[in-house]
Amino acid sequence: MTDIPGYALLGRVNTPGDLRALAPEELPQLAVEMRRYLIETLGRIGGHFAANLGTVELSIALHRCFDTPHDRLVWDVGHQAYPHKMLTGRRARLETIRRLGGLAPFCHRSESEYDAFGVGHSSTSISAAAGMAAAARIKNEKRRIVAIIGDGGMTGGMAFEALNHVGHLKLDLLVIYNDNDMSISENVGALRDHSARLLKKLGMAAPHHARPPEEHNAMHLDTPGALFETLGFRYHGPIDGHDLYALTATLEQLKDRPGPHLLHVITVKGKGFDPAEADPIKYHGVTQFDPVTGAFPEKKAAARPSYTQIFGEWLCEAAAADPTVVAITPAMREGSGLVEFAARFPQRYFDVGIAEQHAVTLAAGLACEGLKPVCAIYSTFLQRGYDQLIHDVAIQNLPVLFAIDRGGLVGADGATHHGAFDLSYLRCIPNMVVMAPSDENECRRMLTTGLALRQPSAVRYPRGSGTGVACDPDARPLPVGKGRILREAHGRRRPRVALLAFGAMVQPALEAAEILDAVVADMRFVKPLDTELILELANENDLLVTIEDNVRMGGAGSGVNEVLLAQHHAVPVLNLGLPDHFVEHGTREELLAQCGLDTAGIQRAIHKRLRSRDLDERSTARRG
Amino acid sequence: MTDIPGYALLGRVNTPGDLRALAPEELPQLAVEMRRYLIETLGRIGGHFAANLGTVELSIALHRCFDTPHDRLVWDVGHQAYPHKMLTGRRARLETIRRLGGLAPFCHRSESEYDAFGVGHSSTSISAAAGMAAAARIKNEKRRIVAIIGDGGMTGGMAFEALNHVGHLKLDLLVIYNDNDMSISENVGALRDHSARLLKKLGMAAPHHARPPEEHNAMHLDTPGALFETLGFRYHGPIDGHDLYALTATLEQLKDRPGPHLLHVITVKGKGFDPAEADPIKYHGVTQFDPVTGAFPEKKAAARPSYTQIFGEWLCEAAAADPTVVAITPAMREGSGLVEFAARFPQRYFDVGIAEQHAVTLAAGLACEGLKPVCAIYSTFLQRGYDQLIHDVAIQNLPVLFAIDRGGLVGADGATHHGAFDLSYLRCIPNMVVMAPSDENECRRMLTTGLALRQPSAVRYPRGSGTGVACDPDARPLPVGKGRILREAHGRRRPRVALLAFGAMVQPALEAAEILDAVVADMRFVKPLDTELILELANENDLLVTIEDNVRMGGAGSGVNEVLLAQHHAVPVLNLGLPDHFVEHGTREELLAQCGLDTAGIQRAIHKRLRSRDLDERSTARRG
Repeated sequence: MTDIPGYALLGRVNTPGDLRALAPEELPQLAVEMRRYLIETLGRIGGHFAANLGTVELSIALHRCFDTPHDRLVWDVGHQAYPHKMLTGRRARLETIRRLGGLAPFCHRSESEYDAFGVGHSSTSISAAAGMAAAARIKNEKRRIVAIIGDGGMTGGMAFEALNHVGHLKLDLLVIYNDNDMSISENVGALRDHSARLLKKLGMAAPHHARPPEEHNAMHLDTPGALFETLGFRYHGPIDGHDLYALTATLEQLKDRPGPHLLHVITVKGKGFDPAEADPIKYHGVTQFDPVTGAFPEKKAAARPSYTQIFGEWLCEAAAADPTVVAITPAMREGSGLVEFAARFPQRYFDVGIAEQHAVTLAAGLACEGLKPVCAIYSTFLQRGYDQLIHDVAIQNLPVLFAIDRGGLVGADGATHHGAFDLSYLRCIPNMVVMAPSDENECRRMLTTGLALRQPSAVRYPRGSGTGVACDPDARPLPVGKGRILREAHGRRRPRVALLAFGAMVQPALEAAEILDAVVADMRFVKPLDTELILELANENDLLVTIEDNVRMGGAGSGVNEVLLAQHHAVPVLNLGLPDHFVEHGTREELLAQCGLDTAGIQRAIHKRLRSRDLDERSTARRG
Repeated sequence: MTDIPGYALLGRVNTPGDLRALAPEELPQLAVEMRRYLIETLGRIGGHFAANLGTVELSIALHRCFDTPHDRLVWDVGHQAYPHKMLTGRRARLETIRRLGGLAPFCHRSESEYDAFGVGHSSTSISAAAGMAAAARIKNEKRRIVAIIGDGGMTGGMAFEALNHVGHLKLDLLVIYNDNDMSISENVGALRDHSARLLKKLGMAAPHHARPPEEHNAMHLDTPGALFETLGFRYHGPIDGHDLYALTATLEQLKDRPGPHLLHVITVKGKGFDPAEADPIKYHGVTQFDPVTGAFPEKKAAARPSYTQIFGEWLCEAAAADPTVVAITPAMREGSGLVEFAARFPQRYFDVGIAEQHAVTLAAGLACEGLKPVCAIYSTFLQRGYDQLIHDVAIQNLPVLFAIDRGGLVGADGATHHGAFDLSYLRCIPNMVVMAPSDENECRRMLTTGLALRQPSAVRYPRGSGTGVACDPDARPLPVGKGRILREAHGRRRPRVALLAFGAMVQPALEAAEILDAVVADMRFVKPLDTELILELANENDLLVTIEDNVRMGGAGSGVNEVLLAQHHAVPVLNLGLPDHFVEHGTREELLAQCGLDTAGIQRAIHKRLRSRDLDERSTARRG
């Protein structure tokens, strides 16, 4: 690539090879340009932001000191990997990131040979890197392996599992502990508390006061080093993660040392952009903003509230009315709508850090003592607490309410973040009640329903907003396992079609039904299903169409099939839902259309099904 | 309860209240009697054994010092909780443990008010106890909470997540770290290595040399204390877990201290029974044995090999033929049949400890580097690595072979250990190939098939042995997604029935088919399903019956329904499988019969279905 105006150095650096050809004294200027490029690009397009400003120097130093892609860099989570992408041939496409067909939101093996491991959820990097290091040992290959993990990711238990194993095997592995004292919100946990005390003592809250790297640190009584050393790692640092000299000098020292090493690097989330440094939570992931002031465009007035907001408001109401209501989040205070609850009910609010397994079992423990825990969790993250949901909640039939946000397609975060499987993996578990709201008011009523149950339940709602319907001031509970008819067929046209829609698919179903003059049922409950309603619809119609934004395999529609066959009903059924492949990133609307789950897609699928011979015959037989 | 001959003290102790009424000098004799009772009872009936011998004194001391059940004891895993059960009114029923209708294998909330939390899988106790401690704080109740966790359980990441959170919240919680240097096999991990070095230094490998408890231990440079102190716990010990005086004195000192405390207790797995002390792995869980010599009855010659053995042998063959084959187990070397592999191929063997999340992602990392990882894991434990399977393996489409043991009902270990959900939670994940063998030879061929694939796969087999069929010396791969007909119908009787059986259900299906003169298909693949075969069977029969030992909801049969409806086929289908409630403990045969999945149950269900009107009509229509 040739020069880009205003970016004298960056224009020359398209690969790590270009980077390695620079003079050492040019590196700080490269960092300046990269940071400016990030600010300008993300100001224009939005994306994960603040964490990337914190890893500019680290990315430069790593690609400078290590022989990538032969050496492996494994970035945890990957929302801090934009500088890495910029240095590995993807700078020009950075403005496509998170867009349909554009760069992936996180690292992605099929996107670049420099992306050694695909990521999205946190705390996996040390395990993956351990596999690579073990492979190098088995294959007797000379290859350096580096895992870069944040202090947020370090709270996830699997990071500990990996450290404990690597320390035992004495694998040749360098872990960069990128400590910015932040998860998406403030990081929590005793390890973080310990680290924060140390940094305060060293005057390193401001990272430009970093002390030089030490040789052969033994046990550091006053650093988190003791923990890592107990796990068999040599601990180094802390060093200033924005000091290119310190970084490159230390990495050069460490890169060929055998055995497990951990380098503690202090960075600032949002580094170099004042508004983001001042409020890294606000700038964790951004929409467009002004690259000079950081100002976001004014939000349009009277925008419909998101489901997240609806949940947050409902939770505060419920907690105000009932002192036994408590809430748990694994590090998603903002994303799950818990900011107000956390402020108003601090004693009943539990941010456990990135620790979904613990979050679920903590909720179970709270339920044992008569409290009413609401575990607020994204669909995709609940996959991390699946065994705990089965064992600690469902087997014991404890009344834990899961408020599952980001069910279905989430859009720009892509394959790792879609909530595509929850209806399948939840409805097979005994004792669970699983609900999916079709609008905001339904969501509130379902939450109230779940909270009142003496058994586990889940309310699963999508990213974004609903229909904008007005909400009843009091959210009355729903009868469990009962759906409702939202639209009757007006004509007597054959074949008669009934749409059995779940959650966010009710709205497009209603729209699709207009042309088809189809009956529309809002099923409300994925489990228990409304058997009576299903049979009634089967008796009165020639085709049932189930519609859900979960994979078809084993999903809610599959449950409808089971009911019909168990009841000896041979009505034709068309199951619509997400396909049996991973859906990548794009806007939620683009992806729904791609999967045929927008109004047009639903109509198309039904028309196609109606053209098949069996329905003609059936319809004729009925008329006859 | 009155005296029992030979147990002067034990006969008087039926509740913790009775225990508290004893004189301190009587406690050692009680321990002797309890241990003898355990050895005699378990020698007669079998069960989890060696770990229970290690917790006799600890159980006495805890119930003596704490006001149970008001104070909460949370036992991790629960296979070491037999002494606790004996002291809490369940001694007389101990001989029913793990039997149908008998005592639960682990702690179970519905069994006793003293079982504060139900368990089965490890590493949950600190999280559950944290919930209880947080609840006590919120409700302002004076209540002591104790979690008892082994060094094996401590390797599970969620224990770390919980420690980190408890240390941050400064909850009033005592963790007993029951360190016997053993998981089910030898424990592994750097933390274990560290602890073992310490104990060696202190001469505490033999626990009768314990040093007295220390007051106010600060940071212990030479103990794992540094790790726990970094996580906000006060570390105490190590003390001798078989010294009742040391235990009770220390617990009395610690029990009312505010904040998080951890007491490191050294115990001996198998304590007090020489054969078990000498070989705690062999005596972890036992069948009947001689309570004097420890000898097991001679195994009947020529017993059929278990699937576990079949897998272990296949793996050694595969590894001998292909140097890129590696194997991973989360602490189940014996249970998963990896003893020979571990001995023959130590460089390619990875026991990661109880750390299923790490196990799966480690496998993914190994696969990235061109190795062929075989992740050997029980069905129920794979629930712990679900997110890792989805993200790190399936999304990246990496060739990891999951050898899933204990699919279906496992028997005596009960609800927490049945592999009841795997077909549902696996088949909804894109890129997965899921196989279930009907006999030993099929198992070998499926493993070979999976190993050769360039995508993720799972072979899911049951506990115990298969049909005893002779195995081909070379295990040839199967065509992916193709089933096979094992039995044709001989007569022309109507209605015609075809059984579509999966895995372990093929054998009872074949037996059931004799009376029914039904067609039997061994479907082999749960995913991808053999659509062609399904349609062929649908065209030629009046009723299809799917049979699986997975829950019906979302299972393999549900997949067959999806195929039929997608292909516009209205053939009646009967889905047989596990019910939508948790199945408790008993023998595998008893439980299968209870669930209607033995030959008689299958016949009964089909006969019932055949009596319904729709089949008559259908059959008549066809004849007409």
